[in-house]
Amino acid sequence: MSKAAYDNDNVFAKILRGELPAHKLYEDDATFAFMDIMPRGDGHCLVIPKQPSRNILDVEADSLAAVMATTQKLARAVVKAFSADGVTVQQFNEPAGGQVVFHLHVHIIPRFEGVSLKPHTGQMEDPGVLAANAEKIRAALAA
Amino acid sequence: MSKAAYDNDNVFAKILRGELPAHKLYEDDATFAFMDIMPRGDGHCLVIPKQPSRNILDVEADSLAAVMATTQKLARAVVKAFSADGVTVQQFNEPAGGQVVFHLHVHIIPRFEGVSLKPHTGQMEDPGVLAANAEKIRAALAA
Repeated sequence: MSKAAYDNDNVFAKILRGELPAHKLYEDDATFAFMDIMPRGDGHCLVIPKQPSRNILDVEADSLAAVMATTQKLARAVVKAFSADGVTVQQFNEPAGGQVVFHLHVHIIPRFEGVSLKPHTGQMEDPGVLAANAEKIRAALAA
Repeated sequence: MSKAAYDNDNVFAKILRGELPAHKLYEDDATFAFMDIMPRGDGHCLVIPKQPSRNILDVEADSLAAVMATTQKLARAVVKAFSADGVTVQQFNEPAGGQVVFHLHVHIIPRFEGVSLKPHTGQMEDPGVLAANAEKIRAALAA
């Protein structure tokens, strides 16, 4: 695998710069969390570092640690927000590893007994549903 | 979801205590890495914290950060060891989230263009194959 460069025009970089909208859930000095607009389950959200990095192969250690601290916050929040039975955490690296956007991101998917993950179809969720789920997660983070 | 207690007799606790064997890849003060004996792809390995924790919902922040630092080491090592095209990282929480062993663990699966993840069948891999793959990963870690 050759080392690919970081592309400053990937969609998550644009979200961080405020050039694209997002349903924001949480932000601190090192990380940003928002709703996945093509959710594989209700409440599916993402955590990204503010520092540019393509994926786990190039991210700096401090940045990765910060991403995981925020991932834990969000995992606890989605369980509370949706009374979830579990949480699936996924992190994909390079196209063969499942990566589609080339800024490091962690998927946090609330899970429910008997409910499979939806396939990644590229279908956008209704913005009203995303906004309502985002509000539930923000409320759980604030509680 | 009710808070479940940590069970000291889970198989990863037994591996940490040396009561069950494992194809060891790496160890430091806070973490331990070894081969998954039911791999979903060649070179599928696991990182666990030494500190007892059930999953991401209860793990202490330092322990989680250490697990992810080791996960990054292993992700880089499996790419090198198998000339992988990518890496899939997964971390499951509670049965509904895909968790089977109740000691926090991160899955690291080398990925190759055109090769899907094998289903989780419960089928054990040949110990000779696991030993050979472990040796490749240890060599990549040492390089």
